[in-house]
Order: sequence, then structure tokens, then C-alpha cells
Amino acid sequence: MQQAPQSNGNRIAVTAGEPAGIGADIILRLAQERINADIIALASPDLLNDRAAQLGLPIELVEFSPESALGPAPGRLYFIEHPLSAPVEAGRANPDNAGYVLDCIKSAVDGCLSGQFAAVVTAPVNKAVLNDAGYAFSGHTEFIAALCQCPRPVMMLANETLRVALVTTHLPLAQVPAAITGEKLEGVIKTVHQELQEKFGINDPQLLVCGLNPHAGEQAYLGREEIEIIHPAMEKLRRAGIALTGPCPADTAFTPSSLKGIDAVIAMYHDQGLPVLKAQGFGEIVNITLGLPIIRTSVDHGSALALAGTGAANPGSLLAAINQAMRLADTAAQPGHSST
Amino acid sequence: MQQAPQSNGNRIAVTAGEPAGIGADIILRLAQERINADIIALASPDLLNDRAAQLGLPIELVEFSPESALGPAPGRLYFIEHPLSAPVEAGRANPDNAGYVLDCIKSAVDGCLSGQFAAVVTAPVNKAVLNDAGYAFSGHTEFIAALCQCPRPVMMLANETLRVALVTTHLPLAQVPAAITGEKLEGVIKTVHQELQEKFGINDPQLLVCGLNPHAGEQAYLGREEIEIIHPAMEKLRRAGIALTGPCPADTAFTPSSLKGIDAVIAMYHDQGLPVLKAQGFGEIVNITLGLPIIRTSVDHGSALALAGTGAANPGSLLAAINQAMRLADTAAQPGHSST
Repeated sequence: MQQAPQSNGNRIAVTAGEPAGIGADIILRLAQERINADIIALASPDLLNDRAAQLGLPIELVEFSPESALGPAPGRLYFIEHPLSAPVEAGRANPDNAGYVLDCIKSAVDGCLSGQFAAVVTAPVNKAVLNDAGYAFSGHTEFIAALCQCPRPVMMLANETLRVALVTTHLPLAQVPAAITGEKLEGVIKTVHQELQEKFGINDPQLLVCGLNPHAGEQAYLGREEIEIIHPAMEKLRRAGIALTGPCPADTAFTPSSLKGIDAVIAMYHDQGLPVLKAQGFGEIVNITLGLPIIRTSVDHGSALALAGTGAANPGSLLAAINQAMRLADTAAQPGHSST
Repeated sequence: MQQAPQSNGNRIAVTAGEPAGIGADIILRLAQERINADIIALASPDLLNDRAAQLGLPIELVEFSPESALGPAPGRLYFIEHPLSAPVEAGRANPDNAGYVLDCIKSAVDGCLSGQFAAVVTAPVNKAVLNDAGYAFSGHTEFIAALCQCPRPVMMLANETLRVALVTTHLPLAQVPAAITGEKLEGVIKTVHQELQEKFGINDPQLLVCGLNPHAGEQAYLGREEIEIIHPAMEKLRRAGIALTGPCPADTAFTPSSLKGIDAVIAMYHDQGLPVLKAQGFGEIVNITLGLPIIRTSVDHGSALALAGTGAANPGSLLAAINQAMRLADTAAQPGHSST
């Protein structure tokens, strides 16, 4: 991978996501704020102008050029043009624009891989619309991982006090137990450990690993995966020098005493790991993809079609995602950290 | 079932649980407090005396008699004697006392069924020890339900602000999807609805039902149980007049906005429902068994062998369980509520 030049350190690509959703709304609202980075929207400028007018927000759209001396200013938004395939009506998703949505993401990822951007932050897409349009799109994380030719991305969500990485993500619950293999678990834990060191600057990450079954299997009375799969994988990783606690019963894993000194929780599946995080503070959660050669963060909400164009969409999660991306880019750029 | 006489209204049976665990410790510490109920310990008085001496706690043990005029006082504890089968050493569980542990529970339940006690509150047992002793004991809830000849108990955990009832409880995760049937779901929801009315005094309970799969199946992209099982069961119950929200994605079900106006959350499985509750405040959670002809609450922690006899065991959850039992008994005894 190409070494990212220092000058890109404050250039953050933001994909606008589903054009009928709130992506444009939250980017335009964010552009009103004082942010210490150049935000470059990958989107249709027509969409941005139309939505700004609908919301009554002043906006100065400036076409991005890699050679330009940029500079952030409230009310200014850089953009890289991607044309829509069909007109957009806020709130009414149109599968005809599915190609546009994916092109924006591809362009942002390419720009990160080439060193043009320090990071990509994604606004929400509508998975069902992309699927209806014939694209086999299972999620941003998987799509971006494929673009980066990275087979094993890890989804981590975080707020200011808690980080939760998932071993499995968007799988029907019935498929979860079979998906938890020793190899999978080792890969996820190694990725989290390495990325906490390299992108978060944590020298000796302390990880808490949840069991799969209630009470972490209760000595095999409630399932054998802890004994047969999770514990052996953890022992192997411990011998490799990774600090691990568990497997812990998930119901008590998130109490303050359990989390003391823990840098990240490894949850076996989506609804084991995320309810506590989201109950703590939904709007400020950032989704971070680990295991990629680029920095990618995301809002943690959907495209909220019903709110698009109404002014009710909250840009808080997008701001948190951009701030997180800037911090990760800063840490990764520090001497002693290899470029990922 | 026999109608409970009013005079039992403040007689709460407390089972001491695993004798080598903290059950005796927390009962003895609780007996030092001013509580507006007669606490009747079903336990070995020798155990209580020995543990009180070990902890340096003053205690006046008074043998319970149904005819006596009782009265609570700090430092006084009523008891019904059950003899130990083997000497007890704090911290070292002995399967020889398994029969004693179960006898104490049976006696308490019998006393509730006969109207002698208003409620039973259980201190923790050690399931593995009971199983090692040859008893097929899968949990307090199931054991007490069998004693009451009640086939469908529902486990609900609650703190001061959140109640979570579980459709499945102590099952390996791989067995959960098949255990979620329409019949099971209807039974659980009806029980929760009826008991919130009768024991909690909530006229029109508002229930939030979680989906089974991540994102509640995301329109069947992530599993079909919501469409095939959960939604039809909920529709049937709605037609019967039960107010239900969902099926909701579990990861966002516990945010303050989702929970607004909700009296209880119905979670499909243990680690979907309990992590948020326990992260909010582990020590003050009460386990309430619904669907029984008696009132039963419990602490929500284990027998903590390592803490027994050390003075480090916290009686907070036991106090919360007793207070909850007293409130439930008061509500159930009010005119207009049929005796359960």
C-alpha cells in the first residue's frame, strides 16, 4: 500500500449514503460547525444544494482538487462529484440510484488507499434498496473490506467509555454458534489487539472475551463451546502474549467492576455486545472497521428516510465518527506506528 | 389455592441457599437492619449461629411458630429449623447437604401455598453442587414451578427503572431459536401481562418485544423468525387487547427513547435481555418468578463461595428482593386483585 503523505492528515472523505435518506442532511448540518479537518463529501452537488435549500442551510460547495490548498470553514463543504442516476425525493428511496451510492463509497476507499484522504467516514445506506437493485450488498463493512482485498474485517463500536468488537455481525441467530470457530476467534482477537496498539496507541490492550452461552456455559451445563472452542483459542493467544480475560458471562461482562481496566470487549454476536453500548448513549456511538489498510469509521444509525429533509436528523453520530477518524489518523501517523 | 390470611402479609420466608455460600451471611447482615416485615429464615440454626459468630454479628434467633405474635426488630431473626446433613465450612460446598438445600426451598414454598407466608425470597444455591449430588436441578425457578405444579414460569429481572422478562432462560444459545415457538411466546407474554396487572398493579401494561435476530431480522434479510413466528403471535395477542411494541431490534430496544412508557421488555434469550439491566446496577436487581400461584423473588447473584464468612458479601440484592416481595404481596392483597 502506498504511504499516505502527511499533508492528507486532515482530509476526511465522507460518503453521503442513501440520497433519499438523512446522509446529505447530517453532512450539511455538520458543515455549519467549526471542525479542524477538511470534510470532502463524495456525493452529487445537486443533491447537496437541493437538500440545503430544503433545510434552509447556507452552504458554499467547493469542488475538491488534490492540489488545492484547502481549509475548513463553517458553511463550506468540499465535494467530489458523483452524478445521480435518477432525481431524488427526500424520504423515497429509488433503486435506480444504487450504483451512485456504491460509486461514492468506492471512490472514497480508492482515495484512502492512494493516500489522498486520511480516512473515510460513511453516512448510512439502505441495504434493502441496494439489494432490490440487484447488488449483493451485505453491509458497508463487508463491501469496503472487499474493495481493500481484506478478507477479515472486524466491526467495533465504541462510545467515549466502552469499545465492543464483534466476532459475528449480521447473521441470523441460528447461524451464530456454527460461525464461532477457533480460527475465526483468533483472527478477530488478533486484529483487535493489533489495531488497538497501532491505531489507538494502547501499548498492552486488555481484552475481555464474552462466552457464547448464558453464564459462559456454566461449566458445560449450558453449552460446550466455551470449553471446546473459546477457551482453547484464548489459551493460544495468551501464550502469544495477548492479555485476555474470560470467557465471561455476557450478562455481567458489562458491569463497571468487570470493565475496570478493559480496553475492549469481544462479543460473540451482535445482540450480545451492542445493547449495553447503545443503551449508554445511542447518538454518540461510532462504528469503526478494524483490520483494513485504511481508516474507516461510520455513524451508527440507519438512513432514516422519514427524517430526510425535515431538519430533525441529528448530526451527533457523524461528528463523533469524524472526530474518531481524525484521532485514529493522528495516532497512525505518529512516529513508531507503521502505516497501515 | 387457599386464600392467604391478611395476617401473613408481612411474613416473608427466606431460604438460606447453599450453606457454604453467602446465603447465611447476607441474611444475618440483613437481620441487623430495620425492616417492616418478619423475616423467617428456613435454615439450620446451627449454621446461622456459627456464621454470625464468624462474622461477629449479634443475632437473636427465635423459632417461628404460626401462632406467635411476631414482630421485626434489628438483630432478631425468626427461623424454621432444617437440620444439616454434614458440617459446613464456609467456602467449601459439600454435596451431602444438597438434600438440606432443597428441603428448605420446599418448606418455604409449602408455607406460601398454605398461606403461612406472604412470599418466598431465595438466597443463591450452587447448581453444580446439587447436580453433583444427583439432583436434576436446573434452577430455582424451574424447581419452584414444579413444586407449585405450574408448567410455565416466567423469569423476570428488574431494577428500579427496567423490567426484563425472558422467553427462554438457561439454554445453550444453539437451542434458543428452536425454543421460540408461537405457543411459548404467547404464554410468556400473557403471563407477563397478567402478572403486571395483578401483582404490580399496572392497569394496561405496555410491553416491548425484542426480535430474535439482529435488527429484528431486517425484513427477513437476517432471519425469518420475526415474520414467521414472532409477528403472528404478537398480532394474535394484540387482537386480545394486549399492548405490544415490536418486534424491535434488541440493540436499540434499551435506549431511553425506546423504553419511554414501556412497563417491561420481553427478551427472547438470556444474554439479549440481561446485560443492559446488569450494567445499569448489578447489586439492586431482583429476580421475580411470574406465573406462579405464590410470590417468589430472588437475589440476582450466585452463592459466591469465596466470600462466605469473610464479611464481604453485600446484602443489597437480598434487601431489594425482600422489598420487592413485600410490594408484590401488598398489591396482590389489595381489594380488586384476586389472590394468585
